Amino acid sequence: MTAQALTPTLSDAELTLIDSYWRAANYLSVGQIYLLDNPLLREPLVAEHVKPRLLGHWGTTPGLNLIYAHLNRIIRERDSDVIYITGPGHGGPGLVANAYLEGTYSEVYTGIGEDTDGLRKLFRQFSFPGGIPSHVAAETPGSIHEGGELGYALVHAYGAAFDNPDLVVACVIGDGEAETGPLAASWHSNKFLNPVTDGAVLPILHLNGYKIANPTVLARIPAEELDALLYGYGYRPITVAGDDPANVHQQLATAFDEAFDQIAAIQRAARLDGEPGRPLWPMIVLRTPKGWTGPREVDGKQVEGTWRSHQVPLSETRTNPAHLAQLDEWLRSYRPEELFDETGALREELRAAAPTGERRMSANPHANGGLLLRDLDLPDFTDYAVTVDQPAAGTAEATRVLGTFLRDVINRNPDRFRLMGPDETASNRLASVFESTDRAWQAEIEPGDDHLAPDGRVMEVLSEHLCQGWLEGYLLTGRHGLFNCYEAFVHIVDSMLNQHAKWLFSSSHLPWRRPIASLNYLLTSHVWRQDHNGASHQDPGFIDHVANKRPEVVRVYLPPDANTLLSVADHCLRSRNYVNVIVAGKQPALNYLTMDEAIAHCTRGLGIWEWASTGSDEPDVVLACAGDIPTLETLAAADILRHRLPDLLVRVVNVVDIMRLQPESEHPHGMSDREFDSVFTTDKPVIFAYHGYPWLIHRLAYRHANHDQLHVRGFKERGTTTTPFDMVMLNDLDRFHLVMDVIDRVDGLSSRAAGLRQEMVDARLAARRYTREHGEDDPAISGWTWERM
Amino acid sequence: MTAQALTPTLSDAELTLIDSYWRAANYLSVGQIYLLDNPLLREPLVAEHVKPRLLGHWGTTPGLNLIYAHLNRIIRERDSDVIYITGPGHGGPGLVANAYLEGTYSEVYTGIGEDTDGLRKLFRQFSFPGGIPSHVAAETPGSIHEGGELGYALVHAYGAAFDNPDLVVACVIGDGEAETGPLAASWHSNKFLNPVTDGAVLPILHLNGYKIANPTVLARIPAEELDALLYGYGYRPITVAGDDPANVHQQLATAFDEAFDQIAAIQRAARLDGEPGRPLWPMIVLRTPKGWTGPREVDGKQVEGTWRSHQVPLSETRTNPAHLAQLDEWLRSYRPEELFDETGALREELRAAAPTGERRMSANPHANGGLLLRDLDLPDFTDYAVTVDQPAAGTAEATRVLGTFLRDVINRNPDRFRLMGPDETASNRLASVFESTDRAWQAEIEPGDDHLAPDGRVMEVLSEHLCQGWLEGYLLTGRHGLFNCYEAFVHIVDSMLNQHAKWLFSSSHLPWRRPIASLNYLLTSHVWRQDHNGASHQDPGFIDHVANKRPEVVRVYLPPDANTLLSVADHCLRSRNYVNVIVAGKQPALNYLTMDEAIAHCTRGLGIWEWASTGSDEPDVVLACAGDIPTLETLAAADILRHRLPDLLVRVVNVVDIMRLQPESEHPHGMSDREFDSVFTTDKPVIFAYHGYPWLIHRLAYRHANHDQLHVRGFKERGTTTTPFDMVMLNDLDRFHLVMDVIDRVDGLSSRAAGLRQEMVDARLAARRYTREHGEDDPAISGWTWERM
Repeated sequence: MTAQALTPTLSDAELTLIDSYWRAANYLSVGQIYLLDNPLLREPLVAEHVKPRLLGHWGTTPGLNLIYAHLNRIIRERDSDVIYITGPGHGGPGLVANAYLEGTYSEVYTGIGEDTDGLRKLFRQFSFPGGIPSHVAAETPGSIHEGGELGYALVHAYGAAFDNPDLVVACVIGDGEAETGPLAASWHSNKFLNPVTDGAVLPILHLNGYKIANPTVLARIPAEELDALLYGYGYRPITVAGDDPANVHQQLATAFDEAFDQIAAIQRAARLDGEPGRPLWPMIVLRTPKGWTGPREVDGKQVEGTWRSHQVPLSETRTNPAHLAQLDEWLRSYRPEELFDETGALREELRAAAPTGERRMSANPHANGGLLLRDLDLPDFTDYAVTVDQPAAGTAEATRVLGTFLRDVINRNPDRFRLMGPDETASNRLASVFESTDRAWQAEIEPGDDHLAPDGRVMEVLSEHLCQGWLEGYLLTGRHGLFNCYEAFVHIVDSMLNQHAKWLFSSSHLPWRRPIASLNYLLTSHVWRQDHNGASHQDPGFIDHVANKRPEVVRVYLPPDANTLLSVADHCLRSRNYVNVIVAGKQPALNYLTMDEAIAHCTRGLGIWEWASTGSDEPDVVLACAGDIPTLETLAAADILRHRLPDLLVRVVNVVDIMRLQPESEHPHGMSDREFDSVFTTDKPVIFAYHGYPWLIHRLAYRHANHDQLHVRGFKERGTTTTPFDMVMLNDLDRFHLVMDVIDRVDGLSSRAAGLRQEMVDARLAARRYTREHGEDDPAISGWTWERM
Repeated sequence: MTAQALTPTLSDAELTLIDSYWRAANYLSVGQIYLLDNPLLREPLVAEHVKPRLLGHWGTTPGLNLIYAHLNRIIRERDSDVIYITGPGHGGPGLVANAYLEGTYSEVYTGIGEDTDGLRKLFRQFSFPGGIPSHVAAETPGSIHEGGELGYALVHAYGAAFDNPDLVVACVIGDGEAETGPLAASWHSNKFLNPVTDGAVLPILHLNGYKIANPTVLARIPAEELDALLYGYGYRPITVAGDDPANVHQQLATAFDEAFDQIAAIQRAARLDGEPGRPLWPMIVLRTPKGWTGPREVDGKQVEGTWRSHQVPLSETRTNPAHLAQLDEWLRSYRPEELFDETGALREELRAAAPTGERRMSANPHANGGLLLRDLDLPDFTDYAVTVDQPAAGTAEATRVLGTFLRDVINRNPDRFRLMGPDETASNRLASVFESTDRAWQAEIEPGDDHLAPDGRVMEVLSEHLCQGWLEGYLLTGRHGLFNCYEAFVHIVDSMLNQHAKWLFSSSHLPWRRPIASLNYLLTSHVWRQDHNGASHQDPGFIDHVANKRPEVVRVYLPPDANTLLSVADHCLRSRNYVNVIVAGKQPALNYLTMDEAIAHCTRGLGIWEWASTGSDEPDVVLACAGDIPTLETLAAADILRHRLPDLLVRVVNVVDIMRLQPESEHPHGMSDREFDSVFTTDKPVIFAYHGYPWLIHRLAYRHANHDQLHVRGFKERGTTTTPFDMVMLNDLDRFHLVMDVIDRVDGLSSRAAGLRQEMVDARLAARRYTREHGEDDPAISGWTWERM
C-alpha cells in the first residue's frame, strides 16, 4: 500500500521544522566528511578548510537522517520508546550528527561542545587519525550496531525487541544489505516474536537503488514482486517514494503514523483482547535517491541518484577549484545560517524537533544495555552436582546435567535470559529446560508439536546467523543468554563473532558504555563424537578463531566432566563483556571430580591430578590434556603406564582454561613462567592431548621454557562416520598412541619398554579390526574405568 | 497453482513402474540404515542381522527418492540432461540407493555388485567404520554437494547451471535448510541467470514439515504467504501435496511435466524469439509427510509425519523384539520379492524406470566436473608485467595490473571462467575486466547503469555466501573462476570453505573423481589499507583458518608487488584441486622485482633479496617479511640500518608462499631443515614482519632449529580509521619499530646503537604527531623509496 492521506499529516510549521532538522543533520554529515575548519562557512571556503583525505560515505546518509527526523516526531507526539538500528552503518556521519543535534554527543564527549568550536572538533575527528570511525560503531551514542559488516541489522533489532514490550526498534535496512544471507533470513524473525511480551520491530527498507557500484536486486524487481516478497515474509509494507522533499515528508509522516498505529493496534489486540496468532506487522519501503540533496552532477556525470554518490561525491576539493566551489554550494544549500545561532549552537526553535532526555534515540538506555543490566538470579550450581565417589568410575552426560541447572536459570529469570540454538537443544541434551519453558513459536501450532509456545524462552531456528544475531541484540540491550551449537557449524558465525568481539573491545574503552553480559557459547556435539554425521560435522577450529581476538575479551573453557561444566557455566553466566566459549560433550562420559574439587580446579583453570599421577615429585613425563575425550584417553594411557611401567613417574595435568597456557603478558589469565614451570617442568617431555587443532597449544605455550619438549596430539582433520575410538585412533590421540609417545619421548625408556610399545601398536590394530568387524568399539576399550590399585 | 490434470498424467503401467522403483529405493535406504545381513529378508529377520549402532536419517529420504524416481521419468521421456542436488544431504541413503539401482554404484565401486552379496556390502558399509559417510558426499556418485552443513544447495545449483545451457539442475531444498541465511539469499540468484546462455535451475522445496525437533517456518505459514514469498523471489510455484502415494505420483508427474514445459518455453522464447527480460521460473513445492512409508507409530507415539522420524524411527531393534518386528514389517511393506530377482539384482522390468548411460543422474558427467574440465586458454602473463628498472623505486597498483591480465583471461574463455565478488570488483581495482565483459544482471536495467548485461562474466552481489557458493557450483561442474573479496569479510564464508576443502580432500582419494579447478581467492582491500572503513574491516585471520585445513589442499600466497601477483595468479589459475588464497594490495605500492625475478622468486616461494641485504655471507640478523605492507616496512628498516649501522650484516628474506615455512613433513611445499637453516640461519635473530596474526608464523616454523630466535610482528587486532602508517605503528610493524627490534635482539648491538634506538622512538612519536595534526602521513615516510648507495 502507498502512504496517502486526504489532508496532509504535517502542518506547514511541522513540515518546516522537520525539514530544517533534516537539513541540519545533512549539513553536519557533509561537514564531517569534508571540513577541517570553518565549520559554519562564516569565512569563504578555501582548500585548507578541507580534509586532505576524504573518507566517508555520503550516499546512504540523507536517507538515514530523514528517517531519524521523522522518528523524532513520532517519539515526541506519542512519547514512544524507540531505538534506531542503522543497517547502512557506513552512514556513520548521519548518526553522529543526530546524536550531536540532540545534545547527547556533547554530554558523552564533553570536549565537543554545542558551539562553533565544538562543531570544528566534531567535523575534524571524523575518520581522522585519533578520531572516530567512519561507521556507526560503539563510539556512536544510541547505537547497538557496528555498521561495517552488513547483514545483521534486522536480527539485532529482533534481539533488542524480545522481552522489551514497550520498545519499538526502528531498523533501517539498506537495499545492499538486503542481498546478504543473514538479512534475508532475518525477516522471518517475526515467527518468533510474541506481541504480548515482546516489543515491536519496524523494518524500514531503504531502496536508494545502489550498492557500491551496482544497482540492488530489491530495487530492480517489479513493485508487485517486492510487495509479494515482503508479504510472504509476514509484513504489511507501506511504500513511500519520491524525490521532492516536501512531498516525501508528508508521505513518510503518514507512513510512520500508520505504522505506529498498526503496532499499537496489534499490541492492544494481543495484550488486552488476547487475540492469538501471528499478526502481519507493518514495515516501510522508502524509495528516495541515493545521495539525495548532494551534488547532482560532478564532472559532467550524474551523481545524485546513482552509485557514484556512495562515498565522497566530490573527491578533488583540495586541488580542483570547481569541486571546491561545488562543495561550498552544496553545504550552503542547507542554509546553515538558518540552523545554527551565532554561537554555533542549534537554534532553539529547532531543538523542539527532537525528544528530550532518555527519549532521545541517542540517549535511550536500551542502546547502552549495561545501564539496564540486572544480574541473573542464579540457583546454586552445586545443587546440580553429580556425586563422584571415585574418579573416573561413574558416568554422566555433562550437558544433560547442565540442562537441569539451565532449567532453573530460566525459571528464575523469566524476563532476561534466553537460550538460543539451531534446533539442537534436545539433541544437545539440554531438554530439561523444557520442564520450565517452551520453544518460542509464533507460527502455526499443530497437534503433536513438542513444547512450542509464543512465550517460550528457548529460541530454535535452523540458522546459526539468527541465533547469534538475536543473542547479540538481546545482550547489547542488557540481557543474558547462551547459544548452544554444534561445534563444527559455529564457524558459520565466525564473522559475526569478529564484529561482536571488536564491539566489546571498543566499548570497554568508553567509560560511558556500561559492561554487558558476556556472549556465551556452549559448543557440544563436538568433533570427537559425530558418530552420526562424519567429516562434515568435524571441525574444532572455532577456538583458534576466537583465540585471534583481543585477549581482553575472549575466554575458552574445556571442562572435562559434568561438575566442571557446571562450575564453568556458572562463572560464564556471571561474567561481563567477554566472549566465553565452552566446549563440552553430550555423550555419557566419566566423572572425575567432586563438586568441591571441580570448583577448585576450575578456579585455578588447570591443575595436577595427583590421583592419576604416579609420585608427587618431579615427574619423568607430563601427560597433559584439555577436553573431555583427550582427558579420557590421557587417563587411560596413565592407567596403562602405572600398571606396566610402575617406576615411571607420570604427572597428569588437566587444563580447563586454555588461555592459562599463555604467558601472563599475553592474556589476563596467562601464567608466569614460574607457575608454568612448576606444572609442566622445565625439561621433561610433555605429551599434550588436546581437543582441537594441535598447533593452538604450541602457539599459546611457545614462549614458555619447556616448549621444545611439548608434543601435542589433537585433531588432524582426519574424520569420517565411525566409532568414537576409531576417531581418536585416526588422529593418533588414542590411549595406545599416547603411551607410544611417552615411550618415544622419555629418555632411555624405549629400550626398556620396547615390548610395551609393540603391544600398543598391536592394540591399535586389534581395536581397528574389532571396530571394522563389529561396527562398534570393543567394550573393553569403551568401557574403561580407573580402578584404585 | 496446484498441479492438476483432467486425464491422469501417468498411465497405470507408468504409475506402477514409478511406484515400484520408489519402493526399491526406499527399501535400499532402510536396509542401509539397519541391516548388517539378510539383505533381502530371505531368512527370518533376527537381531543379529541389525547393525549395533543405528546411524542415519530416514525422515527426508522417502521424499528424496520420490523426486528422484519422477525425474527419471522426465529424463527418459524428454532425453533431458539433469543433475540432482540434495539439499537435505543427510538423506544420503536415498542417493546411494538410486546410484545403486541405476548401476552406477557398481561401476564405480566394483566390489559392490548387483547381487545379494553386493546388497549386503552396500547395506553394511553405510555409516559403518571403514565404510561410507551417512550424508551425501564426495563418495556419492552423482553428487556435487556435501549435505552435512545446510544452506548451500540452491547456490550450488545456480553455479552448476551457469554456462551450461542444456542442463537442468534439479535442486531439492529441505524446509529446514530454507531457514538458513545463505539459502534465503540464494533464491534471488535468478536475477543473475541468463536464459539464453545458462541452463535452468528447478527448485523443489520439500515441505515435510519438520527439522530435527521442531516444525519449520515455511511449513507453518499460510499457503498464500508462502506463494507470495516464492513469487516475490521470482518463481512460479507449482504445489503438490498429499499422503496417498498414487495421488501424489499423479500430481508430481503433472507438476514435473509443467515445470519442464515451462523451462522449455522460457528457453525457446529467450533463445529463438530473443525475448528480453527476466522470466518467472517454475519451481515445485512438495508437501509430503516426513518419514513417509515408515513406521506410523512407535511405542505409542506418532512417528510418520512428525519430527520423530528424522533419524532412526526404531532405535531398539537389537534389544526390543517389538521394534525388530516393526522393522521386519516396515521392510517387507516394500515387497522386496517383487523388486529384486533371485540373484538379488533389480528386476529387469524395473530397470526401464531409469535412464541409461550419462543420462543417469548418478553418472551425469556434470556431477564429476573434472571429466568435463578444459584448461583455461591463458594469455602469457609476462605480457602484463610492469617495468622495473630499479627495485623499490617506481609504483604500481598490483590488482589493477592483474585486472588487465584477467580482462584477457575472460576474453579468451567466454564459456568457462567467471569472476565473483561482493560488488567490489571496481573497488578492488580490477575494472579493466569491464573492457571485455559486463556484470551479469538479469533484473531491470536503467540508464546510467555501469556495465550490466545478461551475459556478463563478472558476478557481483552483496553476499559473500552467494559469490562463494556460485563459484563452488561452477568449479564442481568443471569450470574455472576467481573470487575477489575484502579480506576481513571473507570470514563470512569460513564454514563454506571448510566444506569445500573437505570435499577436495575426500575426492582426491576417489580415483573415479577427476580433479577440478582450484578455488581461487583474491583477498584485497586488506587489513593494512582500510583507511575508509576502520576496525570492522580489519581482520587477516582467514589465512589462519585456511591453514587448519588439510595441507594437501591449501595454498596461501602473499605476493609483495605487481609482477609477483601476476606470476602467482597464473600459477593458481592452472592448478587443480586446491584452495588458493592470494592476498594482495590494491593501493599504489612499490615494485621490487622484474618479471623474470618475480617468476624465479615465486617458483622458489621465498628467497633472499640480495639487493636489499648487506653482505652475502652469514648475516648478523635476518629481516624476513611476507605481504606487501610488511615488505615495504622491512625494506625501509633495512634502508635505515644500512645507512646507520653499515657494519651490521642484514639479510632480507621475502616470503611469497608461507606454507614454505613448514617442515617438509607437514606440507608438500614445506622446506627441509637444511633449506630452512640456509635461509634463516640456525642461531641469528630473525625479525619477521608478517601480514596477519603473528602466531601463524610461529606455528608454521616452530619445528625448525632457529625457532627460538624468531620474533614476529604482525596484526595485533589494533585498528581503527586512520592513515596507513599509523596503522602499522599501532601494531609495532613499522620500519622504526623493526629497527628497534633489531637493536634489541642482536647481541652486543644495543649499547652501540643506543642513540639510533632513541631516534627510532622519537621518529615514531613524530610520525604520530604529524598524522594527528595533518590527517595524513608525513610524505617523507609515505614517499620512501630505496636508493642505490
